[in-house]
Amino acid sequence: MRVMRVTTIHGTRDIRLEERPVPRIEAPTEAIIKVTAGCVCGSDLWPYRGENDITPGDTIGHEMIGVVEEVGAEVRSFTPGDFVIVPFCHSDNTCPHCLAGVTSACQSFAMTTGGQGEYAKVTQAEGTLVKTDGMPEASMLPSLLTLSDVFPTGWHCAVAAGVKRGDTVAVVGDGAVGLCAVLAAAQLGAVRVVAMSRHPQRQEIARRFGATHVVEERGREGAARIKDLTEGIGADAVLECVGTDDSMRQAFGSARPGSTVGFVGVPHGVQLPVSTMFGKNIGLAGGIAPVRRYLPELLDLVTSGTVDPGLVFDTRLPLDQVAEGYRAMDERRAIKVYLEV
Amino acid sequence: MRVMRVTTIHGTRDIRLEERPVPRIEAPTEAIIKVTAGCVCGSDLWPYRGENDITPGDTIGHEMIGVVEEVGAEVRSFTPGDFVIVPFCHSDNTCPHCLAGVTSACQSFAMTTGGQGEYAKVTQAEGTLVKTDGMPEASMLPSLLTLSDVFPTGWHCAVAAGVKRGDTVAVVGDGAVGLCAVLAAAQLGAVRVVAMSRHPQRQEIARRFGATHVVEERGREGAARIKDLTEGIGADAVLECVGTDDSMRQAFGSARPGSTVGFVGVPHGVQLPVSTMFGKNIGLAGGIAPVRRYLPELLDLVTSGTVDPGLVFDTRLPLDQVAEGYRAMDERRAIKVYLEV
Repeated sequence: MRVMRVTTIHGTRDIRLEERPVPRIEAPTEAIIKVTAGCVCGSDLWPYRGENDITPGDTIGHEMIGVVEEVGAEVRSFTPGDFVIVPFCHSDNTCPHCLAGVTSACQSFAMTTGGQGEYAKVTQAEGTLVKTDGMPEASMLPSLLTLSDVFPTGWHCAVAAGVKRGDTVAVVGDGAVGLCAVLAAAQLGAVRVVAMSRHPQRQEIARRFGATHVVEERGREGAARIKDLTEGIGADAVLECVGTDDSMRQAFGSARPGSTVGFVGVPHGVQLPVSTMFGKNIGLAGGIAPVRRYLPELLDLVTSGTVDPGLVFDTRLPLDQVAEGYRAMDERRAIKVYLEV
Repeated sequence: MRVMRVTTIHGTRDIRLEERPVPRIEAPTEAIIKVTAGCVCGSDLWPYRGENDITPGDTIGHEMIGVVEEVGAEVRSFTPGDFVIVPFCHSDNTCPHCLAGVTSACQSFAMTTGGQGEYAKVTQAEGTLVKTDGMPEASMLPSLLTLSDVFPTGWHCAVAAGVKRGDTVAVVGDGAVGLCAVLAAAQLGAVRVVAMSRHPQRQEIARRFGATHVVEERGREGAARIKDLTEGIGADAVLECVGTDDSMRQAFGSARPGSTVGFVGVPHGVQLPVSTMFGKNIGLAGGIAPVRRYLPELLDLVTSGTVDPGLVFDTRLPLDQVAEGYRAMDERRAIKVYLEV
């Protein structure tokens, strides 16, 4: 039996690199990917902090890029050696939900497991993977890695909120998803993009991604600053990229009547302000990003050099230091940790 | 001092017709309307049932049509004798929110009071009122009266939910708003409109309004029936026209991933299922209907005879029997009560 190293979680703040069997093809739709790089997601911090239930010894990690190692009999479009982006949610891309653009609700939905390890399985390879045109340059890998989750997730937030040309957009959350949401809003034509952040390094990346304004205040004060910037009206779209009750209230407080709050942070303890939503006609849209749907467009933006979302990786560690990667993100010393496998 | 008769509320299930001063012009934007007909709104039942706080002796009633009696100095487009639709929310139709289509969030927002009485004031006459082409036939009055709230509210629900040609739409709630939402969905091109109702008379009106299917089950069973009708996928849009937690859950349970639940029932005790919304990418949009925005289009539909939303009035009473009108609606003996003034 071949074994590999993969990241596991054993309890609160207990991340280990352990040996597990290399996954094997068990169904004709599957592929095994040799991981080139993985990373730590903001959503990995919920179980890390004990906010989500886990089974000790579970593997963790769902963002990765790599090289196709082996494919099942029904996988026609990929062969061993292809370099691929692996969306964190696997989809057949043929079911009614996929055809409606909601690949994250695929009838054959599964999530990447073992993405912070040496090998990982993709359950629906044909409908999930997207390959690059040849082997990418090393310098391109961070931006390509963002395509497996964080950049399309920020993009989904902006799409869900209906960002359009000329808009003023407020982004709540300065994690990697929030920064990618800033990038998405700017790419989608927003003329004013307000990053809500009090962290100088994150503000700097936000500005490189297209933020035109930074608001350091939070909560009601933050929302009041957005109103100040918009002659009392509120933002045309608000992108909520955290998932807490406070951030959600800040988002609704910043939104103009008739607008939509996009949300992509996994909600934890959120009670939606339904009376405000009703009274002001502020909608809510978003959820688990349908990564595969956006990939052709976003891969083009990356490979053409139009955008450089890989800037969200401010820390790079070898896989055997994954536990330090979690610590650095938990303590907000790192925006997002790139793991060399 | 001129006095008039107007409906007042003194406590739970205590509706009276009392004398009050006829309102007078106090600002140049105002108009006084001599009411031709008013009606009881589903939302009037919340204070009637003691679910909303009231001040004893408050007037109640916000849906009406009538004839302009007097206008303020800045009102240019209306003169005494004009027959007008009075949207329940008054708007200047020039502020940024009005220009963005959210007249219900107008910076000069006010609501009609005294709509179940002989005279009522409109605070922003120029931006709020819409006149008919001459005095309408008596037979047209019920449908014209629906334009002050209930029909545009149902319409708003369908617009907010993004109903489009070819959709399958589920409508939760068989009150007058729900029935108008059925009518709106059919007019907006839905090919399957499912009225969720267990009341034969309401089902019949729903069918006349364009419902193609009726589902009598509620809650999880109701949602399961919608799934049955859609090969397990769910409705393309769901219109929530009640405002309770149960109806909201039924709505989200009936909606397909990636769709939007429109909501126009004033929420009471609703806890939005944020995890379901996130996991399935089901959005929520709607709120207080921007009646004025829709009026030109909907008035055309009514006066051309394309639609007959006045069918929601199954009970007609003189104003002095208004208390019986409330009782009939509270006990669900009446769908909606038309008050002859």
